[in-house]
Amino acid sequence: MSTQKSTRFVQICEEGPREGFQSEPPGISTADKVALIEALAETGLQEINCCSFVNPQQVPQMADAEAVITQIRKRAKVKYTGLWLNQKGFERAQATPVDLKPTLVTSASETFGMRNTKQTRKQMLEGQRTLAQAYKSAGLNTAAGYVFTAFGCNYEGEISPEKVLGSISDLLTLGQETGMAYEAMYLCDTIGTASPHKLQTVIDAIKMRWPDLELALHLHDTRGTGLTNAYVGLQMGIRRFDASVGGLGGCPFAGNKAAAGNICTEDLVYLCLLEGYETGIDLDKLIASSLLAERIVGRKLPGKIKEVRLPSFST
Amino acid sequence: MSTQKSTRFVQICEEGPREGFQSEPPGISTADKVALIEALAETGLQEINCCSFVNPQQVPQMADAEAVITQIRKRAKVKYTGLWLNQKGFERAQATPVDLKPTLVTSASETFGMRNTKQTRKQMLEGQRTLAQAYKSAGLNTAAGYVFTAFGCNYEGEISPEKVLGSISDLLTLGQETGMAYEAMYLCDTIGTASPHKLQTVIDAIKMRWPDLELALHLHDTRGTGLTNAYVGLQMGIRRFDASVGGLGGCPFAGNKAAAGNICTEDLVYLCLLEGYETGIDLDKLIASSLLAERIVGRKLPGKIKEVRLPSFST
Repeated sequence: MSTQKSTRFVQICEEGPREGFQSEPPGISTADKVALIEALAETGLQEINCCSFVNPQQVPQMADAEAVITQIRKRAKVKYTGLWLNQKGFERAQATPVDLKPTLVTSASETFGMRNTKQTRKQMLEGQRTLAQAYKSAGLNTAAGYVFTAFGCNYEGEISPEKVLGSISDLLTLGQETGMAYEAMYLCDTIGTASPHKLQTVIDAIKMRWPDLELALHLHDTRGTGLTNAYVGLQMGIRRFDASVGGLGGCPFAGNKAAAGNICTEDLVYLCLLEGYETGIDLDKLIASSLLAERIVGRKLPGKIKEVRLPSFST
Repeated sequence: MSTQKSTRFVQICEEGPREGFQSEPPGISTADKVALIEALAETGLQEINCCSFVNPQQVPQMADAEAVITQIRKRAKVKYTGLWLNQKGFERAQATPVDLKPTLVTSASETFGMRNTKQTRKQMLEGQRTLAQAYKSAGLNTAAGYVFTAFGCNYEGEISPEKVLGSISDLLTLGQETGMAYEAMYLCDTIGTASPHKLQTVIDAIKMRWPDLELALHLHDTRGTGLTNAYVGLQMGIRRFDASVGGLGGCPFAGNKAAAGNICTEDLVYLCLLEGYETGIDLDKLIASSLLAERIVGRKLPGKIKEVRLPSFST
C-alpha cells in the first residue's frame, strides 16, 4: 500500500463523524454531519469514516447513515468510508455511494467479544467468513483487519501478546481461506490501557512473526497516554493511525466514560509535524474543522493545539 | 541528591497551588488553597509549591501567600515551598514557615527575559547574584537552577541548544562565584513548544558537556505533547518533574491561553506506574485531590486519568 509513499508519510483515517458522533447523545443533524465531513475533506485527510450501517434501534446516532453518505459533495482523492458489522450492514452500505472499505475483525479478549457481540471468538470469526465471502462476491479482495482489545480488556484485564498473535493468525488464515488480502492490521486499544512498553512488546512480537505485515493503530486517549502511545508507534515504524477531530468521542459531561475518544487528529498531526513526519494535512484547516465539531456538539473538545496559535516559527 | 534512591524513582514537585492557582482568576479563598495543599500532602508527594511571594498588586492571586503557608498543618517529610523573584520576596518568605527552596534563574531567550522582567539576561544574572549572596547569608548553599524558554520562545521562536548551554554555563559560573551548588537544573518549556526531538537534542548536548549535572523538566501541555515529552525525558534518564494536579493552570474558558497548564500530575504518575517508575505517590489519593481542585476552581480540569476508573489489573 504505502510503498509509493515516503517512509515518513503517515496515513490518518478520521473517525470523528463515525466513532465520535456515535458516542454523542442522539440528535446531531444530518446537515451538521455533512458539514463536518465536507470541512474535513478540505484538510488533506485521505480517509473519513462517515457513518455506521448498524441497527438504528440500537444506535440511533447513526440512523441517518444513508442520508449522510448520499448528501456529501465528494472531493476527488478522499475516501468516504463507513462501518458495518454484518452482511446486512454491508448490503446497506453497498446500496449507497460510500467508499467500501472491507473490514475483518476479531477480539483478542473472548469476554469482550462475548459482551459486545454475544458471540464466541470462533462464532465471530465465522461471521467474518460470511462477510469475506460477500466481499469476494462484490469484487473486493482486500480488507483492513481489526484486533479489538489488543492492549487490555475491561473484563479480562491484561491481554497477552500471544492472544494478539493468535487473533492476527486467525484473521490471516481466514484471509487465505477466502482469498482476501489485508492492506493493514489495526491494533485497537479499545479501552485505552495501552502503554509504551505494552505497545513495544506487542508490536515487536508481531514483527518477529510477520515482518511484512503492515500494522496500524486505533488508539483511545482514555487515560492521557494516547498521544504518547502514538509517538511510540511512530518510532516503531507504524504509519497508519485512526484519530478523531478534536478528540471527539465520549462526552466527559455525560458520564459516558467507557467511550472516551480516539486520539485527537489535529494533535497527532501537530506531533507528526514536530517530529518530521508528513501527513498531507493542512493543520490550520483541520483546526477550523475541530472548532466546527465543537460548535456542533456544543462543548469544548479535549484537543489541545486548537486552543493556541501555532508557534510562528518552523518546527 | 537522588543517589540514595532507586534509579527508577521519579521526584515530582506539585505546582498546582502555586503556578496553577496563579493562572486562575483572583478570588480563590485561603481556606480552599490550604485544603488542597493538605490533601496533596496526603498523597505521598514530597514537594508542594504552595504560594508566590510576589507583588500582590501585580499578582493578586498570591496576595495571601503568608496566610496560606502559615495555616497549613504540615506533615513530616513533605516540603512546602514557595516562589520569589527577588530579595524582597525572599525576605518575605524567610519570615514564614515556608520550606525555603533557593532558586537561581535565567532565560535562554533574551527577549522573553526582557518582556517578563524588564532586564537583559546580564541584568537578570546580577539580580540572581544578589539573591545567591542572600541565600549564603541565610546559611543556604544549594539552589535549584531554572532555565526559562529552553525549548522555544514566543518572541524569538526557536531557541538553539547553544543558548541553553550558555544559560546553564552562566548559572553554574554564578554558583561557583557565590559558593552555591545546584541540586538540579530545571529546563522549562515555558511556552509549551518542546517536542521529543528538541528535548533529545538539548538534553544530549547538556549531558555531553556536564555528564553529572542533574536535569529536571518543567513542562507545559499547551499543545498536547506534554506527557509525550515527559515520557521522552524519562527515557533519557530525567527523574525530576514539575507537574500540576489536574493540569491546573491556564483556564481555557477565560482565554488565558498563554498560561496553559503544567503537565497533569496524576497523568504523569499514571504514566510512571505504567512504565515501571516509582513515585511514592498514591494515585487514588492524588485523583481525589484533583477532583477537589476541580471543585475549587469550578470547572473541569484537563487531566484524563481522573475521568475513569483505574484498570483493575496490574499495569
